[in-house]
Amino acid sequence: MGNFRDNIRRVEPYVPGEQPKRLDVIKLNTNENPYPPALGVTAVREAFSDEQLRLYPDPASHALTSVLADRYGLDEDQVFVGVGSDDVLAMAFLTFFNSDKPILFPDITYSFYSVWADLFRIPYERPALDENFRLVKEDYYRDNGGIIFPNPNAPTSLLLPLSEIRDILDHNPDSLVIVDEAYIDFGGESALPLLKEYENLLVVQTFSKSRSMAGMRIGFAMGSSELIKAMNDVKYSYNSYTMNRLTLLMGQEAVKDEAYFRESLDKIIRTREEARGRLEELGFHVLDSRANFLFASHKSVPASRIFEELREAGIFVRYFRQPRIDNYLRITVGKPEEMEALYQFLERYR
Amino acid sequence: MGNFRDNIRRVEPYVPGEQPKRLDVIKLNTNENPYPPALGVTAVREAFSDEQLRLYPDPASHALTSVLADRYGLDEDQVFVGVGSDDVLAMAFLTFFNSDKPILFPDITYSFYSVWADLFRIPYERPALDENFRLVKEDYYRDNGGIIFPNPNAPTSLLLPLSEIRDILDHNPDSLVIVDEAYIDFGGESALPLLKEYENLLVVQTFSKSRSMAGMRIGFAMGSSELIKAMNDVKYSYNSYTMNRLTLLMGQEAVKDEAYFRESLDKIIRTREEARGRLEELGFHVLDSRANFLFASHKSVPASRIFEELREAGIFVRYFRQPRIDNYLRITVGKPEEMEALYQFLERYR
Repeated sequence: MGNFRDNIRRVEPYVPGEQPKRLDVIKLNTNENPYPPALGVTAVREAFSDEQLRLYPDPASHALTSVLADRYGLDEDQVFVGVGSDDVLAMAFLTFFNSDKPILFPDITYSFYSVWADLFRIPYERPALDENFRLVKEDYYRDNGGIIFPNPNAPTSLLLPLSEIRDILDHNPDSLVIVDEAYIDFGGESALPLLKEYENLLVVQTFSKSRSMAGMRIGFAMGSSELIKAMNDVKYSYNSYTMNRLTLLMGQEAVKDEAYFRESLDKIIRTREEARGRLEELGFHVLDSRANFLFASHKSVPASRIFEELREAGIFVRYFRQPRIDNYLRITVGKPEEMEALYQFLERYR
Repeated sequence: MGNFRDNIRRVEPYVPGEQPKRLDVIKLNTNENPYPPALGVTAVREAFSDEQLRLYPDPASHALTSVLADRYGLDEDQVFVGVGSDDVLAMAFLTFFNSDKPILFPDITYSFYSVWADLFRIPYERPALDENFRLVKEDYYRDNGGIIFPNPNAPTSLLLPLSEIRDILDHNPDSLVIVDEAYIDFGGESALPLLKEYENLLVVQTFSKSRSMAGMRIGFAMGSSELIKAMNDVKYSYNSYTMNRLTLLMGQEAVKDEAYFRESLDKIIRTREEARGRLEELGFHVLDSRANFLFASHKSVPASRIFEELREAGIFVRYFRQPRIDNYLRITVGKPEEMEALYQFLERYR
């Protein structure tokens, strides 16, 4: 009786950053964009006819893949879209990481990688970042079943130069290499131009950060048409219709408005650079961020204490209770006035 | 060089029904609802503030699970929502079917079951329906790693009485039994009341058919809080944020308007019963449907020929080129005027 329980897959789920119920908080904990999506998004939502919801959406998501292909100078069959980059990355793990050899990713990185590996029973090893949280490229010059890392890395915010990504690719012609560029638009150099040279490279990006659409769930992968076809075959074996009709239309508009995109990125980058200086004045060591968040450690006050006290004051940042980074805070770059409130509060630790 | 290809998961993807690009067709091929979603859906879409899209949605999808729990007399922790019932079913396969013993489902059924089993490398066996396409419950009284069947079955349209589902559950206390009720609202009796008695039962439903929201992608599972927690753990290990902010709000409204729901179901059921008589007059053998489609075979003209000729005339129905059912057509119940056009065309085969 009840032996069906023996066949249940037991996993340690990813714990996302807290989504506070209170509305009066300053939310700098999940790397969301402080600015709204492009205006065209509103226009297509308002013009939408709900009658069409009775019909399935386009399983190929043509409306979105074609606009992305145009934007990034690719063919349409080089673009795959999914329900946020988590969906895209999970699909990539399932599609590409089927070796008995371990896949490789840094010890300090996006914590979902080990969760997906556990879920799909993929062996993995985690080469340690160096003492300055830099990725050591030589650690990836060994036999493996695949490689993945974010660039810029999370939660460290550090950018790996394109030349080092090239070195990793040159040493791994037999491995699929995924560069997870969730934060690349905030001042990093994308690995996208390398697609022409490396058939084993997959670049993943998202609408959740730079395009202000975390609430809409859109992520995408770019690679050779061969890799994208393999992902689509798996997707069509999992859920043919992932992107709903409104998402396809609204997402399209977010890509089309390049001027607005640049403008909000510039604002965030300016606020970030200002924030770095201000936090340093307040006694923090701050890593050189190329993302929309800062990774910072106070010279004398423990991060856990600052985290808790900020939280009580209604200012939410992210704290990771894990080895090597448990004295750091990850602080999303918000609007200037939100950051000002943060600095004010942090005065007490000066 | 290029050995990364050896690690790519190779699958035979599910082929969904054709989505014709032409707009002037009569589309009776993917079991969509001919009527639009409830009016409340439009109201919340129009009132939506896009500014909130910059924020992640609620990973627990509370807005939707709470309304569904109310509607079906369950606790909120007994409801799981996903991106269409395909997402929900895929997640259930991954969560519950981890035995070395084969799972069981009928030889003629929703063709995605074998696709998911292949994708996740789950062994399976397919007991044959009898010569009248009836499920033989005794075939499920044997050692297995889990059981799944649609009720009503697709593409046969036949309903399995609740008493037989009970018999299958009584013989399988050690197996997880999934009843896939995509079409149950069109006149079937749901297994939902059995949840009180059987802790190994999971019932899956969808917004794509009876709630006219195929284009929005919403499906849901109902079961014990223990089963739903196991599914959520896997979901949080795959993609924490699956349901976007608009989907959560619009889906909620589709559930709230019970009067509209009943009214459009009644219309479809009336059209179906009329259609059965008309098709029989036209020389078809038609199974006793409790779904929003009919499964029909002409007494003298091959189904493949009728399918092709209908298609040329701009009337799309579904044809399965597979053993035992390759002389049948699956015809979605459309609006009365769409069905009238179908009957007119079929006169030529009388």
